[in-house]
Amino acid sequence: MSNGDIFVGEVLGTAILIMFGVGVCAAVNLPYSKARATGAGWIVITFGWGFGVLAGAYASAPLSGGHLNPAVTLALAMDTGDWGTFPVYVLGQFAGAMLGAVLGFLVYYSQFQANGEEDKAQPTLGIFATAPEVRNPVTNIMTEVIVTVGLVLPVLSFNKNDGIGVGQIAGQDAGIYGSGISILLVSLLVVGIGLCLGSPTGYAINPARDLGPRIVHAVLPIPNKGTSDWAYSWVPVVGPMIGGALAGLLFKIIY
Amino acid sequence: MSNGDIFVGEVLGTAILIMFGVGVCAAVNLPYSKARATGAGWIVITFGWGFGVLAGAYASAPLSGGHLNPAVTLALAMDTGDWGTFPVYVLGQFAGAMLGAVLGFLVYYSQFQANGEEDKAQPTLGIFATAPEVRNPVTNIMTEVIVTVGLVLPVLSFNKNDGIGVGQIAGQDAGIYGSGISILLVSLLVVGIGLCLGSPTGYAINPARDLGPRIVHAVLPIPNKGTSDWAYSWVPVVGPMIGGALAGLLFKIIY
Amino acid sequence: MSNGDIFVGEVLGTAILIMFGVGVCAAVNLPYSKARATGAGWIVITFGWGFGVLAGAYASAPLSGGHLNPAVTLALAMDTGDWGTFPVYVLGQFAGAMLGAVLGFLVYYSQFQANGEEDKAQPTLGIFATAPEVRNPVTNIMTEVIVTVGLVLPVLSFNKNDGIGVGQIAGQDAGIYGSGISILLVSLLVVGIGLCLGSPTGYAINPARDLGPRIVHAVLPIPNKGTSDWAYSWVPVVGPMIGGALAGLLFKIIY
Amino acid sequence: MSNGDIFVGEVLGTAILIMFGVGVCAAVNLPYSKARATGAGWIVITFGWGFGVLAGAYASAPLSGGHLNPAVTLALAMDTGDWGTFPVYVLGQFAGAMLGAVLGFLVYYSQFQANGEEDKAQPTLGIFATAPEVRNPVTNIMTEVIVTVGLVLPVLSFNKNDGIGVGQIAGQDAGIYGSGISILLVSLLVVGIGLCLGSPTGYAINPARDLGPRIVHAVLPIPNKGTSDWAYSWVPVVGPMIGGALAGLLFKIIY
Repeated sequence: MSNGDIFVGEVLGTAILIMFGVGVCAAVNLPYSKARATGAGWIVITFGWGFGVLAGAYASAPLSGGHLNPAVTLALAMDTGDWGTFPVYVLGQFAGAMLGAVLGFLVYYSQFQANGEEDKAQPTLGIFATAPEVRNPVTNIMTEVIVTVGLVLPVLSFNKNDGIGVGQIAGQDAGIYGSGISILLVSLLVVGIGLCLGSPTGYAINPARDLGPRIVHAVLPIPNKGTSDWAYSWVPVVGPMIGGALAGLLFKIIY
Repeated sequence: MSNGDIFVGEVLGTAILIMFGVGVCAAVNLPYSKARATGAGWIVITFGWGFGVLAGAYASAPLSGGHLNPAVTLALAMDTGDWGTFPVYVLGQFAGAMLGAVLGFLVYYSQFQANGEEDKAQPTLGIFATAPEVRNPVTNIMTEVIVTVGLVLPVLSFNKNDGIGVGQIAGQDAGIYGSGISILLVSLLVVGIGLCLGSPTGYAINPARDLGPRIVHAVLPIPNKGTSDWAYSWVPVVGPMIGGALAGLLFKIIY
Repeated sequence: MSNGDIFVGEVLGTAILIMFGVGVCAAVNLPYSKARATGAGWIVITFGWGFGVLAGAYASAPLSGGHLNPAVTLALAMDTGDWGTFPVYVLGQFAGAMLGAVLGFLVYYSQFQANGEEDKAQPTLGIFATAPEVRNPVTNIMTEVIVTVGLVLPVLSFNKNDGIGVGQIAGQDAGIYGSGISILLVSLLVVGIGLCLGSPTGYAINPARDLGPRIVHAVLPIPNKGTSDWAYSWVPVVGPMIGGALAGLLFKIIY
Repeated sequence: MSNGDIFVGEVLGTAILIMFGVGVCAAVNLPYSKARATGAGWIVITFGWGFGVLAGAYASAPLSGGHLNPAVTLALAMDTGDWGTFPVYVLGQFAGAMLGAVLGFLVYYSQFQANGEEDKAQPTLGIFATAPEVRNPVTNIMTEVIVTVGLVLPVLSFNKNDGIGVGQIAGQDAGIYGSGISILLVSLLVVGIGLCLGSPTGYAINPARDLGPRIVHAVLPIPNKGTSDWAYSWVPVVGPMIGGALAGLLFKIIY
């Protein structure tokens, strides 16, 4: 893979992921939405994000292997010792996350405009970035660290099962079935993480997923948008990076 | 594939898809329905449409490759440069969509007859065709264009992963695992699109899916059926075709 | 496959399927059930039946190919012209359906005993057999015929995609991936049929699934069990058999 | 596989499984949780546990084959006659279950602390261990035995379909696709068991899953935690072990 392919792949894949994720959060929060009108809940949000991984990872797999998450790239770099492409991946992921947030905003443009017209204006930050239910940096970081390990360690172990891992997908010699199955598995894993472990902090588990759209939220002219909550913004960046590093270490020790 | 196989395959597959989709919309909207009685919502609608893709695409895959959508056929033709079968595909898709809408109407025949008897009559167009939550041609087109790209670009990228793509399924030499997995992936992708991006306009993302059943709605003798809303009917045709063309272009540039 | 293997396989697989299906209907209808306590609805019922197919078909696949449904066996016999094992399959399916209904009753024994104690007694037939929302033999038969075609035609087309079909699973030479994927697909197809087309009649789409448990309902000493509704019992037998035959014919013509 | 690999694999996999499962039960029961705030129900719980199997089994598959359940290990040992690693598996499973319960507690630490602050304190045992809806040792054991057979017999039959079974995953020569598909199937089977057969007793179907977290519940300093209900604790140990043995016997006889 060339650096160009990696960058384009990560921009594309992360943009699709975040467009889906911002979309599903808009769907359950904003007025004039079919999902909200039919009482959509947690299962809609968690499957929406999981199938966003499916869409984004498949679109980017032939180009960059579909990491879409700096915590995954960090853990894979710790495993392989190959750090040369690390900055290219991470730059692509943040650029893609910002692009995806703009696209999600455009898909729900009329709904964002209507926020506050029909009923009391909803704060819109929850559509773009995560927030904890109980604000406590120590427990919030702890939650994000543990949950990120719960994402990255199984993903790395897919790698260990030759051919069905994230790393292999990227290679020209990647088996097609491997790539087909492993991305499906990662997307269902992300659904499971949301269902089981996402309730305390909103499961950022990915610095690009949280910080990129938060920046877009701060910049875009969204009616009644409320605060961008910069005080919390470091937690969903630092927590997942610690979790990714920890998963990389555990993987080296265990397998 | 002969033109005959393609036509029959697309009629069959699109008919199954639309029978499922019209069915699930009838299930949550009409009286005397087990789904409505148990409070079915957005997750029922989105999984119903997604598994309708599964059913229709598998039934048509050995004959035509299972496009079921003029926007997909357009993007694939732009990629391969082979336009000879384009009209056969599209004719089959529209014929199939109309047949499927009639079949869905027959499955729920008693429920359609009862509409307006028990409670206030529901408008029935939403069972056949899409409608936006906020009526604005500019944002509605924008939404359909972006969401269609979100469908077609990953589908084309399945193609890029040799052997798991839509194109390969149609060939005699199509690997069985490829075909098995790729259609499952497309159907889950459609679920994800519904969950995440379907709320503003009802995600036509397919001109045949919307216009075919809308014509059937206008023609069939459905009690208390309400308007067929021809004023909006061009949006879910033009938007998805622009989206399909855009996805085809982006695919050529990116991969 | 010997006749003995076929019989044992179909008894085992259909028993597991019906135990799951009766179970999920008990779960949402009877008192003292965790599902009912948490407001389970149509999505629970439809995924429950679909994953019951998954469990039953995998358990029986190495022995009999996992038909579990006389309508499927009928259509496959029409396709292959091999009628010698037809009665063995069907006998096994009915015996298995009755065994599974008893097992489902035993799993929910305390809940059945409590029916009528805590609140008004629920009729229990809906846990064992189907009933239409609008009673009309003509439309009920029409619905069951069309919906059964919607099940059996895609299943037969899996067959056409060499190696991922029901028929191949049964053979000693069945590829493992084929069997693994095709059963998963059939189970999701059954979920989709339930979501989209199951609301008018409760989607018997399988004579053994309806008649077997209905007999068990009539015989078992269930408190406050209500009627076994023999007047309707022929519809979910005749409708699915016509549908299976029609699917077999259509398959011969189309593919 | 060395004993060390087996032990580490089962600790890791069972810890991930129980962290997910304890997590999803905390999510729907405790205050300040996004799942509870959006009215999550039975479908969230059952998919959460099922995808916990996905995460835990994949992480442990390269090391130990991912049994994660003494009832599965028992049935496999009865099938293969190889009892040498039985105690290593079971020790790893109980140690992992306890570790996972602690991790689940840490992820929801703030929510556990808040239990009883905002509203009436919820009993917390249901987050860690199972309890029957109707307390009756005879029917509770019967339910756990039958439901465990419904889990273990299909899992063993995956084994019979060469290469997609649990046993093969553990071997060095395990095909990757086999392992990929079979674990996905087991996880969906667990979802189905929860939906269909889990309502009477909470589907322990795994002695380690129930007893390990129950011990942790008794030991951890959880505010307002309520009783650990030792009187019931033998049922979800004895029932699943009888079920596992019965499944092993049935498998020997049937296949």
